Amino acid sequence: MSFKSAMLPAAAALLGLMLGGCAAHDPNVISLAEQGSFVAGGTVLQHDGVYSSENFLSPDGQQAYVDHAYAFYQIPVNARPLPIVMQHGGAQTKRTWESTPDGRDGFANLFLKADYAVYLVDQPRTGDAGASAVPVLPETPFGANPAYTSHSYFDLCRLGSFPQLFPGSQYPAGDEALEAFARSWTPYNGDLDNDVNAAGLAAVLERSGPAIVMTHSMGGTLGWRVPFISDNVRAIVALEPGGTPFIFPEGEKPEPVETVFAPLAASAMETSLENFEKLTKFPILIIYGDYIAAEPGGEVGPDKWRSEFLMAQQFAAAVNRHGGDATVIHLPDIGISGNTHFLMQELNNDRIAALIEDFLHQKGLD
Amino acid sequence: MSFKSAMLPAAAALLGLMLGGCAAHDPNVISLAEQGSFVAGGTVLQHDGVYSSENFLSPDGQQAYVDHAYAFYQIPVNARPLPIVMQHGGAQTKRTWESTPDGRDGFANLFLKADYAVYLVDQPRTGDAGASAVPVLPETPFGANPAYTSHSYFDLCRLGSFPQLFPGSQYPAGDEALEAFARSWTPYNGDLDNDVNAAGLAAVLERSGPAIVMTHSMGGTLGWRVPFISDNVRAIVALEPGGTPFIFPEGEKPEPVETVFAPLAASAMETSLENFEKLTKFPILIIYGDYIAAEPGGEVGPDKWRSEFLMAQQFAAAVNRHGGDATVIHLPDIGISGNTHFLMQELNNDRIAALIEDFLHQKGLD
Repeated sequence: MSFKSAMLPAAAALLGLMLGGCAAHDPNVISLAEQGSFVAGGTVLQHDGVYSSENFLSPDGQQAYVDHAYAFYQIPVNARPLPIVMQHGGAQTKRTWESTPDGRDGFANLFLKADYAVYLVDQPRTGDAGASAVPVLPETPFGANPAYTSHSYFDLCRLGSFPQLFPGSQYPAGDEALEAFARSWTPYNGDLDNDVNAAGLAAVLERSGPAIVMTHSMGGTLGWRVPFISDNVRAIVALEPGGTPFIFPEGEKPEPVETVFAPLAASAMETSLENFEKLTKFPILIIYGDYIAAEPGGEVGPDKWRSEFLMAQQFAAAVNRHGGDATVIHLPDIGISGNTHFLMQELNNDRIAALIEDFLHQKGLD
Repeated sequence: MSFKSAMLPAAAALLGLMLGGCAAHDPNVISLAEQGSFVAGGTVLQHDGVYSSENFLSPDGQQAYVDHAYAFYQIPVNARPLPIVMQHGGAQTKRTWESTPDGRDGFANLFLKADYAVYLVDQPRTGDAGASAVPVLPETPFGANPAYTSHSYFDLCRLGSFPQLFPGSQYPAGDEALEAFARSWTPYNGDLDNDVNAAGLAAVLERSGPAIVMTHSMGGTLGWRVPFISDNVRAIVALEPGGTPFIFPEGEKPEPVETVFAPLAASAMETSLENFEKLTKFPILIIYGDYIAAEPGGEVGPDKWRSEFLMAQQFAAAVNRHGGDATVIHLPDIGISGNTHFLMQELNNDRIAALIEDFLHQKGLD
């Protein structure tokens, strides 16, 4: 370089030394202008009676602060204008977005390295936001400890038939990764309430400001309903939404899509046209992976996600019919095979992240 | 500077430009070589019966993966050799160490900015490690939802008499901070078991390698017992240990230190001399804040911590009697006043962190 040859040797050496110690130039280094955590939203319950220190452990006269969400946020140096708020799915926590089961960068790190600020949510009544207005109910699926769910979760998430991965799976293989999968679940501290959880997500968005909302699985419905109560949604990226209702305008709810194991059928609910039209004001990207059954029947997982995938297509059609901009990507259709329900953690998760980045770029949101 | 004046103007401008964009030189920027999370330790329970997809939600034939710890770790560029593993107290999570109730840097950020790698633990059966071998028991104090604990926790933690802070308190004042305090608690997902929790902490230390263990409150006993099962402890910094047993060699357990509210009396247990001597192989720093009663009686919080403070002094004396290196600091005795039980979150938390950094430096651990 001409400038270098023109420099005095001592200055050139110093420049090299300073740049050598300059972390911001190493693409593997994450340089943060700010990071922290907060709780947002929630309610306060009041117990009857009068508090006294003589009866120190009694609830009498005390309040319970409950049903808030927790968020851990990281803002890189030179962050892009819109952060990504990441909302986990059922019986998961923000761990969904952190290290993969084989210890590589998860979506939090990948998007930080692409200069997005990230907010990782623990939804109300779970994780670091475990204070609930109601106790966990025995009838809450996956809500009680100990949770004997090794086969259920593995099969449901289309990893394969426990403990065998489907052939060609992008899910990291080996006992260590499968144990990490099994230990990634956290039973609820209280009953699952999607309205409480959407309120928690909205409260996080109040702190983050305008943002891209990224949801996974049962968190999908929180993405669909949070625009009803928050003006800060600029896009929704829904990874394998399902397990909680898709939302349609009054009078447009489709017929259920039945499944071999009936309780797993995709569900839908109605909202006012005024609410639904809020979902037409920003781009929506929905992504599903591989191993989704083409026809009814067969294994529980592939059949369940056939149902959700069909419902998602009807949801996207409804959004677009009302003037919105919803895209559904089935990864095998664009040549990406082997992804399960946990595509953000898999061997090709950098490719999935790049796909999302491209989408955000196309929509002018980066 | 002579080198600068000797440089050609274009090179000087470029150097300025490049250094201006170099985050590593801004002391408020945290530059991370690596960050991620993992679960460690735990057990596997097997349910009787045979799994079938027709009975998808049944526990029959399934396993429960439980009792692991969770850790979120961050390793700064040019990290010091020993990381700090931070273990929260009762009904808390790693949030203890994150942002303060008024949104300033907590201990995680302060020590990262001092070039320490940090590992933030959620102990087994809580937070993002909520999978428990046993359900939460109604008789577990602070273990059930909803938890009516506004007064109990505020008073117990020597913030004052709910909702009034003690005069001169370093705890951040105002409704927002007090609400953050009230929402920082997460009831257990399962029964509190200090041996399970110590095993979880030991499993985290297996991943971190040799480390400084920092404990808070009920996490104190985990610090005292983890050296019995892990060789990776190089120092313990115990912030206001109490609420769980201090540990003494067989035959040396002191008399209980009674309290006005009897269940809050400091407790002690015995271990083998062989175990106890492991506590003499590295430096131990114990720190207590202000508002600790000088005499028995009075308010629940100040009286409870009088009991723990006296027990801690006897513990340190036992460690030192057996050839160890334990120091107890009562902050008011060194001119630092107004700290409550949550001194890592208070207005002068940078001063407390600096005190700990000085200690680690004196002991050659930085």
